Amino acid sequence: MYSLTVRDHFMIAHSLKGDTFGPAQKLHGATYVVDATFRRSELDADGIVVDIGRASEQLRTVLADISYHNLDEDPAFAGKNTTTEVLAREIFDRLVRAVHAGMLGDAARGVVSLCVTLTESHVAWGSYEGQV
Amino acid sequence: MYSLTVRDHFMIAHSLKGDTFGPAQKLHGATYVVDATFRRSELDADGIVVDIGRASEQLRTVLADISYHNLDEDPAFAGKNTTTEVLAREIFDRLVRAVHAGMLGDAARGVVSLCVTLTESHVAWGSYEGQV
Amino acid sequence: MYSLTVRDHFMIAHSLKGDTFGPAQKLHGATYVVDATFRRSELDADGIVVDIGRASEQLRTVLADISYHNLDEDPAFAGKNTTTEVLAREIFDRLVRAVHAGMLGDAARGVVSLCVTLTESHVAWGSYEGQV
Amino acid sequence: MYSLTVRDHFMIAHSLKGDTFGPAQKLHGATYVVDATFRRSELDADGIVVDIGRASEQLRTVLADISYHNLDEDPAFAGKNTTTEVLAREIFDRLVRAVHAGMLGDAARGVVSLCVTLTESHVAWGSYEGQV
Amino acid sequence: MYSLTVRDHFMIAHSLKGDTFGPAQKLHGATYVVDATFRRSELDADGIVVDIGRASEQLRTVLADISYHNLDEDPAFAGKNTTTEVLAREIFDRLVRAVHAGMLGDAARGVVSLCVTLTESHVAWGSYEGQV
Amino acid sequence: MYSLTVRDHFMIAHSLKGDTFGPAQKLHGATYVVDATFRRSELDADGIVVDIGRASEQLRTVLADISYHNLDEDPAFAGKNTTTEVLAREIFDRLVRAVHAGMLGDAARGVVSLCVTLTESHVAWGSYEGQV
Repeated sequence: MYSLTVRDHFMIAHSLKGDTFGPAQKLHGATYVVDATFRRSELDADGIVVDIGRASEQLRTVLADISYHNLDEDPAFAGKNTTTEVLAREIFDRLVRAVHAGMLGDAARGVVSLCVTLTESHVAWGSYEGQV
Repeated sequence: MYSLTVRDHFMIAHSLKGDTFGPAQKLHGATYVVDATFRRSELDADGIVVDIGRASEQLRTVLADISYHNLDEDPAFAGKNTTTEVLAREIFDRLVRAVHAGMLGDAARGVVSLCVTLTESHVAWGSYEGQV
Repeated sequence: MYSLTVRDHFMIAHSLKGDTFGPAQKLHGATYVVDATFRRSELDADGIVVDIGRASEQLRTVLADISYHNLDEDPAFAGKNTTTEVLAREIFDRLVRAVHAGMLGDAARGVVSLCVTLTESHVAWGSYEGQV
Repeated sequence: MYSLTVRDHFMIAHSLKGDTFGPAQKLHGATYVVDATFRRSELDADGIVVDIGRASEQLRTVLADISYHNLDEDPAFAGKNTTTEVLAREIFDRLVRAVHAGMLGDAARGVVSLCVTLTESHVAWGSYEGQV
Repeated sequence: MYSLTVRDHFMIAHSLKGDTFGPAQKLHGATYVVDATFRRSELDADGIVVDIGRASEQLRTVLADISYHNLDEDPAFAGKNTTTEVLAREIFDRLVRAVHAGMLGDAARGVVSLCVTLTESHVAWGSYEGQV
Repeated sequence: MYSLTVRDHFMIAHSLKGDTFGPAQKLHGATYVVDATFRRSELDADGIVVDIGRASEQLRTVLADISYHNLDEDPAFAGKNTTTEVLAREIFDRLVRAVHAGMLGDAARGVVSLCVTLTESHVAWGSYEGQV
């Protein structure tokens, strides 16, 4: 199995609902460094998993729709607890749609799975991995 | 599949038995930076894999029982070669017991697997991954 | 010159005032990984710059007063633009007061300078360094 | 499942063929930081996946045959597009041959899979993982 | 003293002249991760050293003129040994010209020094620091 | 001012004397990742601060005399508290002697200062910097 990962980041404000979250129930924020890992069994005709340039561009596009937002007021997250794991899943879903829409090129439709990892500090990170 | 990782570290003295280990057969030591990765298919009601706070706390508790020890004289490791891999397995076992005992919260019982990675230098690390 | 650095982090919401900041004028947030570097010419009687345990503890204490805050509503930052540089200076000032108050131990009064670095993402960080 | 990873690096010149690669079609170069991850279900008699010393040595040997080369003129890569993914696969193949040849020791023949990751910058990396 | 650092990277081919360089006398290449650190005593009216956005943009512009080049054939480096140190100096010079030309904004003319660090692998990096 | 840094590591056992050190008064150990930064105002005739190959080799030689030792029984450290700071100074002294002895080449005698940083975990490091 081959993989190709690109990295970018976004910065948001939010609060988390539930006693579990202690002080994080207050409005605060985070920088998330995002790693998107695309996987496939065989490379395309160019010898790649996906085009790094296009993958970076699509990741940037997806993150631009979230970055500098107060997620508590972002309709896309209405009724959701915007934990690291939930955000990883949301970015996964948006990137999968971009792959299906051909935004990473026709060859990228050969990607079989994707893992999105969000690093929130030097001591904690979360991810979602699923089929594309 | 979702994952959540927390990081901590511990520092120990030990020696390794067997010609394979060359100079590491002498009493020396190491810092191990520990990453504990919890995985599950679906998030709990709060939208998380495990509570980061509790996971960090339990990891700290497990490591506190090993840190600053001379493992050559620690009964827990009697008759064992305390390689990076063996230590990763031991910490895995102790964290699994903590999950089963409810120390990470009731919801954390939904965790299906755990990977414990010990980084011993900037050029070498080892891990153990198994079912919870 | 000797130095000793300890690392911790905090997570806040804020907005920045001024056209320069573009989308960062909106309420958003950040994780700041904080490195506090203490310097002195000669070590103390124990052979250290400062006690790592105490330095980590004081850094944690200082950050606990800021972490999980919406800085736009924190009186401590009223009328200030809470840029990375301004936050580095504020944490510097609070740590210097802790040194002078003996919170890092009497020997730590031998520290001559301090550098506080705030990493806001994998591609940007800022710092303030000054005499203690 | 246990794993053991060792890290090293190599530096090469090359050009990539295909419109996909844009400016990377010109002769340029890269540093690749290489992580080789060996996996097996049970440890050997010494309590290890593979001997770190031998694994590091074999990785260095494999990379020495590529490092400081202009891959456009290296017969080993004739007719191949030397993308990060293709290079990861080539290094995988060479390390697998080393395992089979007993170069990592007899016990290392218990290794069941290997993952080779090549980091080409702080924002992009690729890998190949397969059975040994 | 305040500082602000932005990070980017470039990838080039080159060869180094002189017996000192051993195998690096052959045409090979490197990825350089570049950190540009701007310093000044007092912040500008917005509370910053330089605008992160503009600093990142100017660094990208400077690196775009070098990236994907074979430096052996780049007139800008004719007669120079393009070592890590020499490249750090060249990028320093180009960024200083950008500061003086007002490309980082008028306020950025208050910057008093700049340090450019080029990381060529996980085990080696070089820098040049000077007045602006 | 130019700089060139090389990185390596060593692993030791030791105990620290004094109430300040709490549990670290017991025999334990550490991995130290070592960065040696050489500085000079002007580059040598080859366009370098020091030869990376020789610098790496001398650092490895210096660390080989310490690595895998129990520092409590190493005569070189008799009567010394082997804190991170003290170890940084000792490695500094040994590297300076290597420079003066011409072990890094004649040109390296132009080095004016050296900084040795020892990273003991992901959250703490210490250094010593002085004239060569």
